[in-house]
Amino acid sequence: MTDFYGRHEALLKQALNAIAERTYFSAYPESASPRVYGETARAEGDAAFEAILGKPFPFDDRHPNERLVGSETSPYGKPLGIRYPAASIDALIEASAAAGEAWGKASVEARAGVMLEGLARLNRQSFLIADAVQHTSGQSWGMAFQAGGPHAQDRGLEAVAYAVAEMNRAPREVAWEKPQGKGEPIRLAKRFRIAPRGIAVEIGCATFPTWNLYPGLFASLATGNSVIVKPHPAAILPAAITVKILREVLIEAGFDPNVALLAADEPSAPIAKDLVQHSAVKIVDFTGGPAFGSWLRHTLTDKLVYTEEAGVNAIVIDSTANFRGMCDNIAFSLSLYSGQMCTAPQNVFVPRGGIETNEGHKSFEEAAKGIADAVDRLLAEPARAQTVLGAIQGDATLERVKEAASFGRVVRASAPVEGLARSATPLILAVDADDERAWREERFGPISFVIATDSTADSLVRAETSIRDKGAITAALYTSSDAVAEAAEAAFARANVALSINLIGAIFVNQSSAFSDFHVTGGNPAGNASLTDTAFVANRFRIAPVRRMTA
Amino acid sequence: MTDFYGRHEALLKQALNAIAERTYFSAYPESASPRVYGETARAEGDAAFEAILGKPFPFDDRHPNERLVGSETSPYGKPLGIRYPAASIDALIEASAAAGEAWGKASVEARAGVMLEGLARLNRQSFLIADAVQHTSGQSWGMAFQAGGPHAQDRGLEAVAYAVAEMNRAPREVAWEKPQGKGEPIRLAKRFRIAPRGIAVEIGCATFPTWNLYPGLFASLATGNSVIVKPHPAAILPAAITVKILREVLIEAGFDPNVALLAADEPSAPIAKDLVQHSAVKIVDFTGGPAFGSWLRHTLTDKLVYTEEAGVNAIVIDSTANFRGMCDNIAFSLSLYSGQMCTAPQNVFVPRGGIETNEGHKSFEEAAKGIADAVDRLLAEPARAQTVLGAIQGDATLERVKEAASFGRVVRASAPVEGLARSATPLILAVDADDERAWREERFGPISFVIATDSTADSLVRAETSIRDKGAITAALYTSSDAVAEAAEAAFARANVALSINLIGAIFVNQSSAFSDFHVTGGNPAGNASLTDTAFVANRFRIAPVRRMTA
Repeated sequence: MTDFYGRHEALLKQALNAIAERTYFSAYPESASPRVYGETARAEGDAAFEAILGKPFPFDDRHPNERLVGSETSPYGKPLGIRYPAASIDALIEASAAAGEAWGKASVEARAGVMLEGLARLNRQSFLIADAVQHTSGQSWGMAFQAGGPHAQDRGLEAVAYAVAEMNRAPREVAWEKPQGKGEPIRLAKRFRIAPRGIAVEIGCATFPTWNLYPGLFASLATGNSVIVKPHPAAILPAAITVKILREVLIEAGFDPNVALLAADEPSAPIAKDLVQHSAVKIVDFTGGPAFGSWLRHTLTDKLVYTEEAGVNAIVIDSTANFRGMCDNIAFSLSLYSGQMCTAPQNVFVPRGGIETNEGHKSFEEAAKGIADAVDRLLAEPARAQTVLGAIQGDATLERVKEAASFGRVVRASAPVEGLARSATPLILAVDADDERAWREERFGPISFVIATDSTADSLVRAETSIRDKGAITAALYTSSDAVAEAAEAAFARANVALSINLIGAIFVNQSSAFSDFHVTGGNPAGNASLTDTAFVANRFRIAPVRRMTA
Repeated sequence: MTDFYGRHEALLKQALNAIAERTYFSAYPESASPRVYGETARAEGDAAFEAILGKPFPFDDRHPNERLVGSETSPYGKPLGIRYPAASIDALIEASAAAGEAWGKASVEARAGVMLEGLARLNRQSFLIADAVQHTSGQSWGMAFQAGGPHAQDRGLEAVAYAVAEMNRAPREVAWEKPQGKGEPIRLAKRFRIAPRGIAVEIGCATFPTWNLYPGLFASLATGNSVIVKPHPAAILPAAITVKILREVLIEAGFDPNVALLAADEPSAPIAKDLVQHSAVKIVDFTGGPAFGSWLRHTLTDKLVYTEEAGVNAIVIDSTANFRGMCDNIAFSLSLYSGQMCTAPQNVFVPRGGIETNEGHKSFEEAAKGIADAVDRLLAEPARAQTVLGAIQGDATLERVKEAASFGRVVRASAPVEGLARSATPLILAVDADDERAWREERFGPISFVIATDSTADSLVRAETSIRDKGAITAALYTSSDAVAEAAEAAFARANVALSINLIGAIFVNQSSAFSDFHVTGGNPAGNASLTDTAFVANRFRIAPVRRMTA
């Protein structure tokens, strides 16, 4: 049998070092260049994608398969027509539990080896995955490649590294000797067995079907649990490709491939609620809306439930030494994937009396217009607009953009992009801070508010309290004042949200780097877990100790 | 200001090493000998205890104090008559939140210094604490000294070590540089701020009022939360002494002493439910019965709830090379503190056809009688019986012993001990394995069942399944067979319970050593957390990251 662990041990060590150092690290190249992935990689990925369309998805024949389901349609209009094997919840659970027996007893290294080989093969399929992510999430191809491929793989590796570090925190065996004064010491041989929880259900989302899936998926598997992946019905394919690759590696490593199962469904017959309530399910990871997230947290009180839900991400503008750079940076954050990132800003707080900049004083109006103009500049060319915006994933988001236009004074109207039916450029509204009904709810999609406040101090209070109440994954600040930066750090630390200060150029508040940035703090309503920290992995297994009297 | 951290840093480093090595370590001597703690220590402790009785408890005047409460009576018959300051829940929360502001912002080292100095002072007060624990829990003095003093202090230090290790897992600051091909790298200065959760409520129990309190208390404090200690109304004093000492250190270190508050109550007016449901309370640690434990877990769905509840601890007897030693060992485990330890065995599974021993074949009857005889031997002298058994903490336990006599055939009857009114020696009942109504519920106190099974394999199945359903903190096995030991390790690992094999002599299944044994696995209904592992501390704080563009 191939020594997968030995093959990838050096990379794992780099990853273990990276999570401790938290400086820049990436295992899988984010450039889709032929120089990196080979001249034929893109064509092969596209061919593999085309070969999957319009057919039953090609799992090995050990996957439970009672009927076929699937009704994905590409936000770009391409028919997918893929049908996935489906089975009753009892059949899935039974297969998962049976496969989990040997998997749970395998060594830390054996499991890590399977995970690392799986990631290596996923990386080689990054072009296929890019197509799959593009045509389910609506991301542009370039973003689908990076976020759906190497960046997601980095997040998976990060989770494996945390899991391995945590399982190795205590030694496997130890000789314990308690002195007894002048008498013989008491001697015990102790073992600390890793005991997985059981079955983990990984519930995916439609906008980032791999990036948000991989941390929980790889953390659950590495810690010895068998997993059932329940993708969003609109974005099954990226999850199915992932499960297929993991199953192939599991088989080669001598494990039952049902350690990793797919539980696909259709919007007309959702299965998640019944699946997660099965008594054998012990862990649930979820990315999606707060209605279902809240149901999970309040219903599954005896299971581990890790959620990433929603939030009202904030930008506080106090002052800037680079007005144009700031506006460009914010414009990109508002536009990227049409604001469908969980990290995209929604609320931009600006003092009613305006701000000081390198271009002199700017009124509230001028600040708002500066951002709107920057969006127009960014999206002026249709080709570039398509690349930045991608398509709109769900109809509900298109509806939301339409409705939102009445929630404030339109600073910049939303419109479709030339050549892309299902698209919407950023809608920017100006509102007064007291108009809380407008801005204090999450409005998922390309909808943002420039909010007039009494002062930067007022902006900070409103940003902090709205985040404490409604959650947020990101906050940003523009200021030339150290005192303001300090006050903002304290306010956003109380709201337990990641803060970015004075970002200019090719780095954006939306971006979260594996091995360095903690994605979601877990400390406000946007989610109860962080990708990835120790708390995210430490409770996915337990230690069952054995101590034995020795002579 | 005294550098508490510097004073105790070497000890912390030893503790950090110990939790990684998990070999024998103890920071606070368990021997009450005058050679260790000084010739006058016991007399001083007794005097300090007497001085506290019959008066309002002497807190500093900054503790909220609207009225006095307290109705403790010693299980040994001594009137205590101590009255503790009490205040409304709003007043307690307000004081705790105000004190928590600066505490949460303090450095890891500043907080650890306060904790370590607190533990050092608690250790010096171990004789006072022994008296307080004895006259609330009913433990004998010797056990109250060890379990209530140094062993509890070791558990506190262990929790501080885990908390410090975890808070230092990521660096506080890092320079992040992402290469940009031939261009200038993107540079961010990143900070990872420790953000505590808020207020932690620590709910104590009546039988181990410090040992079970300290892990959550010290873990919550070290990670920056302010704490409100809600002791069992029958065992307030040990918690009050602990809070008083911590408050003294907090004041000397320049903190608001309300970082540590006492919330005493009386059985007629319990406050725990209202207290824990306050929105500012984010963490609850609880040791006690499964009814309240279950209420906490199902009600506080948006808080962190760590419980130690109940269980049906098991011994499986397959065979032994030392029949008398085995019986003596089990007898001591059944007798120690009258079976009022959460780790005490309840169910002893023995094959109906008997067992093989160094004394030849022993029938089921002979095996049961062997244990009963060993109990009689152990408790023959009244002075020794008092030392081993201690007093019965609660009336409900005395009632339970009376009722239980009808649940099976009495192998050994319970009786009071000469000279100790509120006492009960072990009741041992023989039952058939199918009589599940008798043995499959926790019967807290000196009540045990010798259960006739078809075989050792049957014993293992019944032990495993009863523990999976009802929980257990300990399991023990006696066998001369490696194959049986291996099967038992697997079965008890599935039940996620700590297993001890072939214990003979001065080491007992009831005992759990800080820095080496994980107490409770967190993986069966006996509790959802382990004392202490990373999962117990990692979620008590979050990381609020800040990243700032650098030139």
